[in-house]
Amino acid sequence: MEQPEPAAEITLRAIGRVSCPRVELVDDHWGNVPSVIHLDAERFTPDALTGLADFSHLEVVYHFHRVPNAAIETGARRPRGNPNRPEVGIFAQRAKNRPNRLAVSRCSLERVAGLNIHVRGLDAIDGTPILDLKPYLREFGPQGNLHQPTWSTELMSDYYAD
Amino acid sequence: MEQPEPAAEITLRAIGRVSCPRVELVDDHWGNVPSVIHLDAERFTPDALTGLADFSHLEVVYHFHRVPNAAIETGARRPRGNPNRPEVGIFAQRAKNRPNRLAVSRCSLERVAGLNIHVRGLDAIDGTPILDLKPYLREFGPQGNLHQPTWSTELMSDYYAD
Repeated sequence: MEQPEPAAEITLRAIGRVSCPRVELVDDHWGNVPSVIHLDAERFTPDALTGLADFSHLEVVYHFHRVPNAAIETGARRPRGNPNRPEVGIFAQRAKNRPNRLAVSRCSLERVAGLNIHVRGLDAIDGTPILDLKPYLREFGPQGNLHQPTWSTELMSDYYAD
Repeated sequence: MEQPEPAAEITLRAIGRVSCPRVELVDDHWGNVPSVIHLDAERFTPDALTGLADFSHLEVVYHFHRVPNAAIETGARRPRGNPNRPEVGIFAQRAKNRPNRLAVSRCSLERVAGLNIHVRGLDAIDGTPILDLKPYLREFGPQGNLHQPTWSTELMSDYYAD
């Protein structure tokens, strides 16, 4: 590689914050949770959201801000600590105790009002810092045939259920 | 909110880096590009990837590291600068010149060899810092009916084409 090495550390700043009725971490039943993403009014104006309402779904990057450094896993663990599940690597699961504590999640967009984005099904608790917000485009979905192991399908069975 | 305010700045560290044949930014034809994600050998061992090969697709968070601070857009712009497209907010498009410079992308997983993850269709140039890596789970896809504006469908027409 001829390019200079990028900086080892990357500093981000939240672009906004979530408010929603869930104040504690809960594993399941996120599908119908209503949330509002409040864009930071000190840095943004509503034109940052022009045209967003033409999309049905968003892709949101947020920070698992309640995970302490000491809890971050860098090896393998059983998803949700369940002894009946196989041990899998932290990058082979979506657990929150991961390096960089980044979450990526889809949700339905209900409406945009000024700097407030009303969504449904965002799996983030009240106060969560939002790092990015993108429209979901069909063409950016996975290409070709999907497959995944049984444990992951079982784990998700109630995730978005009412 | 009763929670303490999280820190205003969030510091991340790349978990690995991409190597691939594309060394310059290109808009389209990513679908068949082969890449290798090299996990940082100073911090990880292959057990961080245990079980990853059971998934067909990955979701990758990376940093648009070549975008200078001065180029970051916080308002609205025309996607790809095309005068025939409407002006849309930076959070209503997926342009790289965005606050925090975060990319989220899906790709096919071909094989895992030690700390090297061989993928296809990852839209990141050679040397890109990888910030997170997750298995793609069907259940985490968008729920319900999808819709998106015409300009976004047109823009994506050659993105993953050969």
